[in-house]
Amino acid sequence: MSVRWFFRVEYDGSAFCGWQIQENVDSVQSALEKAFFTILRVPVRVVGAGRTDSGVHSRGIGAHVDVPETADIVKCSYAINGILPFEIAVHDFRIVDSQFHARFSACERQYRYTVVTRKSPLMRKHAWYVALPVDWENVQQQCGHILGKHDFSTFCAAGHSPYSMVCSVSQVSLIDKGAGQWEFFIAADRFVYRMVRSLVGTLIDIGHGKITQSMIDLINACDRSLAGATAPPHGLVMEYVKYGESL
Amino acid sequence: MSVRWFFRVEYDGSAFCGWQIQENVDSVQSALEKAFFTILRVPVRVVGAGRTDSGVHSRGIGAHVDVPETADIVKCSYAINGILPFEIAVHDFRIVDSQFHARFSACERQYRYTVVTRKSPLMRKHAWYVALPVDWENVQQQCGHILGKHDFSTFCAAGHSPYSMVCSVSQVSLIDKGAGQWEFFIAADRFVYRMVRSLVGTLIDIGHGKITQSMIDLINACDRSLAGATAPPHGLVMEYVKYGESL
Repeated sequence: MSVRWFFRVEYDGSAFCGWQIQENVDSVQSALEKAFFTILRVPVRVVGAGRTDSGVHSRGIGAHVDVPETADIVKCSYAINGILPFEIAVHDFRIVDSQFHARFSACERQYRYTVVTRKSPLMRKHAWYVALPVDWENVQQQCGHILGKHDFSTFCAAGHSPYSMVCSVSQVSLIDKGAGQWEFFIAADRFVYRMVRSLVGTLIDIGHGKITQSMIDLINACDRSLAGATAPPHGLVMEYVKYGESL
Repeated sequence: MSVRWFFRVEYDGSAFCGWQIQENVDSVQSALEKAFFTILRVPVRVVGAGRTDSGVHSRGIGAHVDVPETADIVKCSYAINGILPFEIAVHDFRIVDSQFHARFSACERQYRYTVVTRKSPLMRKHAWYVALPVDWENVQQQCGHILGKHDFSTFCAAGHSPYSMVCSVSQVSLIDKGAGQWEFFIAADRFVYRMVRSLVGTLIDIGHGKITQSMIDLINACDRSLAGATAPPHGLVMEYVKYGESL
């Protein structure tokens, strides 16, 4: 008999090929599965709320794992951070119902994307350095158009074919953190492939004046060829995944 | 004839032996002087507002340099960030009076020290991970005692003998940033050697219950042997240096 554990994972994406296990490279998922094996002595499968790309960070992605009923959640949650590499930590362990699923039970995903407009040694691994001038007022206005339920085909990169391109965006904000640092925050029930990076790259292209169409026109066109650049992965953090009331 | 330039320096202290030039190791000062030499083709001396220790970061330390009158401040300020290593950036260049001095004209220095109470991959190079439980309410109370003009002999590490141990602390705060992250912010006209790290280490020792005396008693004792641990350098950032109205 097995029992399902929920937990959250923080990681520095610089060190990994992304979340998902791939041959011959280090992934977050494989590092987690190895650490669980070291403690539990049985192979387990770790399931995450999503599959972040190579270089993308996480502060609070949700995950679940099925372990033998005899496993001690308190002992394991203490021991595992010492076994995992410096670049990964796990928190908020709890036992969940076997119906719970880290991916399918998620009701909201939150991402943060940081841009710096001047060279920043302290943010160099966690922000995109945009050297050309940006019309931030326009970018701020365009952000508002993203809110709501839309078909996001324009902002879905090739390579994945999800069952639907429709996402309900519940929050979008652009925060001026001062000293040339800007933070995009976006929350939705789901995201299509590379959507946040595609949105941010396009918004910055609008801010540069390279794209003159409005965000709402770009969304409504449902035409991938109209999207701007894809922002680099190291500026992106999967902040948090919300589940129902229980978590 | 020469002219004096002011500028601010951001750096990731992990890469350096500290601010000051030392033989056979990389310092912030030597990297800056080399970069100026590459552009100006004359040797210059860079003077900083203070000398941060090995591993300590900076977001906005002030500095000055005397350069030939013919040097172009706009061109240089554009070029120099491309020459400096990733871990150093310079900003806010301006011409100042020859009476201005990056160290002696400073009227306030601001430091931030970050503590995390759980393993944090994203903060691992910029925060001290304190695993034992901390009584933050007590730490918060003790912080208040630091405010004002005191002799800080208790919190001055050996190795430097400044002309005075008296500092006027104008701001102290402890901010709960959530998810186990805590930020100390402290501003004063001047600091004695390793004062912020000594204060933070002692406050954490108080929070652990290892030190039972109050901060005001420790300060009044003027006895170095009463101080607690010195917090590690990588949690410390020299945030900003204030000058008169002109800067």
